[in-house]
Amino acid sequence: MALIVQKYGGTSVANADRIRNVARRVARYQALGHQVVVVVSAMSGETNRLLALAQEIMPEPDPRELDQMISTGEQVTIALTAMALMDLGLKAKSYTGAQVSITTDDAYTKARIMNIDEARIRADLDAGYVVVVAGFQGVDPDGNITTLGRGGSDTTGVALAAALKADECQIYTDVDGVYTTDPRIVPEARRLKSITFEEMLEMASQGSKVLQIRSVEFAGKYKVKLRVLSSFEEEGDGTLITFEEEDNMEQPIISGIAFNRDEAKITVLGVPDRPGIAYQILGPVADANIDVDMIIQNVSADGSTDFTFTVNKTELSKTMAILKDKVQKHIGAREITGDDKIAKVSVVGVGMRSHVGIASQMFRVLAEEGINIQMISTSEIKISVGIEEKYLELAVRVLHKAFQLDQAN
Amino acid sequence: MALIVQKYGGTSVANADRIRNVARRVARYQALGHQVVVVVSAMSGETNRLLALAQEIMPEPDPRELDQMISTGEQVTIALTAMALMDLGLKAKSYTGAQVSITTDDAYTKARIMNIDEARIRADLDAGYVVVVAGFQGVDPDGNITTLGRGGSDTTGVALAAALKADECQIYTDVDGVYTTDPRIVPEARRLKSITFEEMLEMASQGSKVLQIRSVEFAGKYKVKLRVLSSFEEEGDGTLITFEEEDNMEQPIISGIAFNRDEAKITVLGVPDRPGIAYQILGPVADANIDVDMIIQNVSADGSTDFTFTVNKTELSKTMAILKDKVQKHIGAREITGDDKIAKVSVVGVGMRSHVGIASQMFRVLAEEGINIQMISTSEIKISVGIEEKYLELAVRVLHKAFQLDQAN
Repeated sequence: MALIVQKYGGTSVANADRIRNVARRVARYQALGHQVVVVVSAMSGETNRLLALAQEIMPEPDPRELDQMISTGEQVTIALTAMALMDLGLKAKSYTGAQVSITTDDAYTKARIMNIDEARIRADLDAGYVVVVAGFQGVDPDGNITTLGRGGSDTTGVALAAALKADECQIYTDVDGVYTTDPRIVPEARRLKSITFEEMLEMASQGSKVLQIRSVEFAGKYKVKLRVLSSFEEEGDGTLITFEEEDNMEQPIISGIAFNRDEAKITVLGVPDRPGIAYQILGPVADANIDVDMIIQNVSADGSTDFTFTVNKTELSKTMAILKDKVQKHIGAREITGDDKIAKVSVVGVGMRSHVGIASQMFRVLAEEGINIQMISTSEIKISVGIEEKYLELAVRVLHKAFQLDQAN
Repeated sequence: MALIVQKYGGTSVANADRIRNVARRVARYQALGHQVVVVVSAMSGETNRLLALAQEIMPEPDPRELDQMISTGEQVTIALTAMALMDLGLKAKSYTGAQVSITTDDAYTKARIMNIDEARIRADLDAGYVVVVAGFQGVDPDGNITTLGRGGSDTTGVALAAALKADECQIYTDVDGVYTTDPRIVPEARRLKSITFEEMLEMASQGSKVLQIRSVEFAGKYKVKLRVLSSFEEEGDGTLITFEEEDNMEQPIISGIAFNRDEAKITVLGVPDRPGIAYQILGPVADANIDVDMIIQNVSADGSTDFTFTVNKTELSKTMAILKDKVQKHIGAREITGDDKIAKVSVVGVGMRSHVGIASQMFRVLAEEGINIQMISTSEIKISVGIEEKYLELAVRVLHKAFQLDQAN
């Protein structure tokens, strides 16, 4: 007998039929002797409906009141899910975040979980109930309702699994696992049986939008066994996300090819090469709450250097304006250029730690196709390159093939 | 400076514009130096929408889960109302029933308020906030969300007013007060400046559906000054509901004409006149959860009598079946007849306690119009008659005129 936390996203509970599907799956797990805690999101579309309603009243809704309101989305789904379970003859009980004391800080709309009092859930499980908990929401120490921000339901699932020391946290979504790359670009892409936590972080942050990064970090911190599965398929084991170092031995060298076409590149040309320059350039950008991804500064040849970084495409013009207004003159830079026709392609795998030559193989493959590399950035388990956007699909395909990701491992 | 509780029903908060109207009214009261607590219902239609959703999953929804779900209706409105107040520059804060500890028993879907911890509301009021509280809902001692049943938001308003010792509880609805009778039948009907609690009870239970009976009883018990007003009119003092005996001196003899066309009459003919017969007839009816209104049994002439009572029209056939199956033979009744073409008209007024002749005046007026009286039932402050339904409007009109209710008092 295992204790399993199952999290279902908005599309999995979008209507009565799908909620009944969720209930049937839960019933199958219970019939196998497992204890099941179900975490559900709001029905898809509901959160946006509520947000629009709020904005009709207050263009920038007060965060406390917005959370008070938005949290009703999941409150409806937990009740419906519990009813669907009862309709199948199971014992079920729903709880809001506040009712099971998912205590958070008071940062409305992006609160962080501080503590979960799991006693109530455990008592219900032991009494034979399926416990249905609202995702995405909590309560601050003063009893105000909070929400956890984008992807917060995943975080709720993982946090509950950690608090209950569950055997597994299953994240049901509309894909059946993590793939070696996007199957829409490479039809031969394969579902990975498992992926390490660190690879998952790289895959997710690079644009494989299967799981919210925060929930993966959370799972890593508390060593929660996390599995991604499809809620639309009866069979399949999904992809298991692992944390144990010893698992690495069985890992392939490269797990997948991630990519991102949402970034734009900014280059500050002719920057005097002196301490503090990076801060002088990026400080004003950070002050404007603009996230920076890749940062590259090459060694200086003649006392001046070029400084390049990437931001989200939507922030390009704003960032350029900040640099031209506040930075260029101040630091004595020659010119500032922007380019939104770039894409980032990454080769990800924990195995590359111990294998030299991955980088050179990657560069060779791209060179053979005549794809020029504009930027390079590396970490222990990934190599990312910035290339012209029009070559993105080609680059992903040839890399996927070169690293034999189309072959079962 | 007064402390005022204002309760707004579903039609008063049906959309963004109406919610803004509510906010503007609250702002006017606060500008006069009053402290205001606002109680709101769900947007009209929302409760039914949620109920339909639940029934899609579970034809007879589990009561706990239904309350968990239905209570989100008010939770949305409190947040929107607080936002609308903030948008006008006021300080505002919303609370669910659970958040201000409106503690109830655990009778889901029809819970009763046991206690309110008003400290939090009082602290906010003293800090200059308008406090917006969800009507219709509470929380049981175990933290489960409950709802108070039909008209529960009125009850929340009155209960909060009692707990806070508010100077007045204002119930905003789509009528601007309590009228001498329904203005759709008698255009000359006047709004009453005030009405006693007992008269209000009679008027409400007789079909003047302005206020829920339970909230009026609650107000009576805790001596809450209750006022009914229109949320669609800027001006007007509505109707004040009074509880003080001394007020009676200023009361007119008759306050209004109530009526009800929802009842059907059942007569059990040839019942042996012996102790226990009433119970033998009505016991099985009560066991089937059928409410009985008027009950009339005349003295016996020849050792047998006729027993008449009224039930809601929708229950007529069910009641007839119960009597024929379980009662008729058992008590040896000759015949059982049903009639759903009746209506009840009542003359209501505390003043009639000390004035003889009201009944005879009522009977004379009806006789002059050729309206036959089928049943009579009286209480200290009302006289009700059952008549043929087709005469209902005529009866209401002539009684309204005869008791000079069209003239200012």
